Amino acid sequence: MRFRNAVLDAIEAKKYGGRLSEEVIRAVATGYTGGEVPDYQMASLLMAIFIRGMDYEETLALTRAMADSGERYSFPKCVDKHSTGGVGDKISLTALPVAAACGAPVAKLSGRGLGPTGGTIDKLESIPGFSASLSEEGFRCQVEEIGLAIAEAGELAPADKEIYALRDATGTVDSLPLIGSSIVSKKAATGAGYLLYDVKRGSGAFMKTVEDARVLAELLVRLSEDLGIKSSALITDMDNPLGSAVGNALEVRESVRFLSGGEVPEDLAHEARYVAVRLLELKGIPDPGSRVEDALSSGAAYEKFKEFVRTQGGDPDTLDKLPVSSEVHEVPAPSDGYVARFGALGVARAALALGAGREKKGGEVDPGAGVEALVKRGDEVEEGEPVARLYGGRNVERAEALVREALEISPEPVKAAPGILDSL
Amino acid sequence: MRFRNAVLDAIEAKKYGGRLSEEVIRAVATGYTGGEVPDYQMASLLMAIFIRGMDYEETLALTRAMADSGERYSFPKCVDKHSTGGVGDKISLTALPVAAACGAPVAKLSGRGLGPTGGTIDKLESIPGFSASLSEEGFRCQVEEIGLAIAEAGELAPADKEIYALRDATGTVDSLPLIGSSIVSKKAATGAGYLLYDVKRGSGAFMKTVEDARVLAELLVRLSEDLGIKSSALITDMDNPLGSAVGNALEVRESVRFLSGGEVPEDLAHEARYVAVRLLELKGIPDPGSRVEDALSSGAAYEKFKEFVRTQGGDPDTLDKLPVSSEVHEVPAPSDGYVARFGALGVARAALALGAGREKKGGEVDPGAGVEALVKRGDEVEEGEPVARLYGGRNVERAEALVREALEISPEPVKAAPGILDSL
Repeated sequence: MRFRNAVLDAIEAKKYGGRLSEEVIRAVATGYTGGEVPDYQMASLLMAIFIRGMDYEETLALTRAMADSGERYSFPKCVDKHSTGGVGDKISLTALPVAAACGAPVAKLSGRGLGPTGGTIDKLESIPGFSASLSEEGFRCQVEEIGLAIAEAGELAPADKEIYALRDATGTVDSLPLIGSSIVSKKAATGAGYLLYDVKRGSGAFMKTVEDARVLAELLVRLSEDLGIKSSALITDMDNPLGSAVGNALEVRESVRFLSGGEVPEDLAHEARYVAVRLLELKGIPDPGSRVEDALSSGAAYEKFKEFVRTQGGDPDTLDKLPVSSEVHEVPAPSDGYVARFGALGVARAALALGAGREKKGGEVDPGAGVEALVKRGDEVEEGEPVARLYGGRNVERAEALVREALEISPEPVKAAPGILDSL
Repeated sequence: MRFRNAVLDAIEAKKYGGRLSEEVIRAVATGYTGGEVPDYQMASLLMAIFIRGMDYEETLALTRAMADSGERYSFPKCVDKHSTGGVGDKISLTALPVAAACGAPVAKLSGRGLGPTGGTIDKLESIPGFSASLSEEGFRCQVEEIGLAIAEAGELAPADKEIYALRDATGTVDSLPLIGSSIVSKKAATGAGYLLYDVKRGSGAFMKTVEDARVLAELLVRLSEDLGIKSSALITDMDNPLGSAVGNALEVRESVRFLSGGEVPEDLAHEARYVAVRLLELKGIPDPGSRVEDALSSGAAYEKFKEFVRTQGGDPDTLDKLPVSSEVHEVPAPSDGYVARFGALGVARAALALGAGREKKGGEVDPGAGVEALVKRGDEVEEGEPVARLYGGRNVERAEALVREALEISPEPVKAAPGILDSL
């Protein structure tokens, strides 16, 4: 009866815009995870929260309750980063090995991606032999010994998982306090002591404006700090994909190119360095800028990445020739001009059509499928010149149509997009 | 998929205060009754409606969709009345036989009461042999032949029934558009051509103020008229019980006393006459006031009631000696003074404790249990004088405590409460 009363009390208060006490919030979260609070009551409460909002104290209480709903790990010396989700976002694969090579140990527990492209775990699993399933003991040892481990999270913040699934089905996803508590509860459960949030904004992201992204970034940092995690945030552009590759093996290949000193698009090279520097700053490591450059130019960052891949069962010698789909289709520019936009959302949908992501939970991902964007906003193009390469044999026509639709060409010159828009 | 999309569209629109189209409302109501729309999505939508409201057109569309969700009857020549629920409310048992005796046929399909005291059907079933289960054919014939039939409704407006049960469990009951559409959908399905609403206000009712009751009354009349039912409404007091009897057989006994020309409290005598007159007016019967007086003084109304009871299997000769519980307990006045209030809600709870109502759906009702209030607001009382009689052997101490708590005695004289507060 206790949980059932708590949710009815919470509904009664919140529907008129009242406050929920920490005790009530905890009883509701616990009761929902335990099955005592039925979906329909939780759905009613979530809609009341969606419309009436929650103040900071309520949001913190919900974050804490969800973080405590499953196992909680503790890696107080480690750094981690979290992206709110972007297209072609390979910053974890590039910046984290650099940070680890500079003496900031990384302990990253991650979920599987649901959406147009895979998550970090899916990307890493495109490396033959690589395993993201580590025991807690194995994960700890690896963090201790090589300073870089990325594994699939088990039952982290199960209350968040269940509440998120219900929000997804009841039109209550886009609520700031619910988004903030969802993100931070999971990160708090993974236990890294230092955390950098990369809040994306733009057509391919959740937050459409820099202002909205900044409000979310401030909430994430404040909640994390109040849960004992030293945090900061940056706001980056997601109108256009990051780098050129979108798709699992394609993104690992591009990351390896960056780490090994090869040529990659400037937006990716800049943001990967910037994030690595910010992680070192957070941890208080002196002179972070030159350390990051040293780790890249000396090959230490790439060596760290290879060591990490080897420790988790992958063959580092395959990294520079990672298999991608042999079915490749080039998309030509429809006219002369300047690229005004290569819409991230459209490119992501094309990659999804080709098999790079999951249309539904538990679906299979084709590691070799995806899209390579060959031009960036600001580039001059000639009619017929290839602007993208499609990898994969599935839905090629639909993927091409999506890519064509995503590409906007202007007769006038266009400035390149800034990658990092703001930081706090 | 159609229904599922409709509910998601509806949630998306309503959570930001948008309007729902008639098509979407119908698809949601049909989908929910058919099981395609899950409880949690309907709960989310109901909370959005609770907070954001619905305009008149949306409310009408929902009323219509719920009325159409099951069988719809049609008795265009018949009158009916509906009370929003009061304590000791025996107006159906008194005013309807009078109206029928004056040439306004009555076709009443009713549900079973859930709450402190029984519904009209429960009250009638305290008459030995009386049956409220009639076939549609039998019901129609009885209306045709004797002009008065009261039977239990089958699956009237099943969408309303299911939505109401969900509202009850998700904190979304007290919403004006949801209350209005719920009441009118059921009445529209019963099909009477003329309908008088008796909206109760006060501590024992849903609406606490006359203003709130008037807003609901106006909505009920407008919705009914737009569904082709000629309607009007009155607003009556429910701070104090109506008449003196609260409990099934006790209320039938008091009704029979009124119909047979015996002594009953003035509030009941006045309201029963008033409702009968208003029903005749609605139907356009001339000179309603003297017709009602004639039907009562000639005994025609009582004869009509006896004919009705006989036709539905009851023995009319038992009516004036209807069995009530032989366990009777008198409650004395705690002091000298004037009755300031005999709280309807407290008296109802006492009757429920004694067994007169249902604590939960499907529960058994003791027809002989209940409370007789021997004093009314304004009456002068002496310490020790009996103020109430409790009938029934169950929970007598608790019932007495509830009655004592409900009674407020003032040292100063108090005016009697007006019964009918407003009408439209």
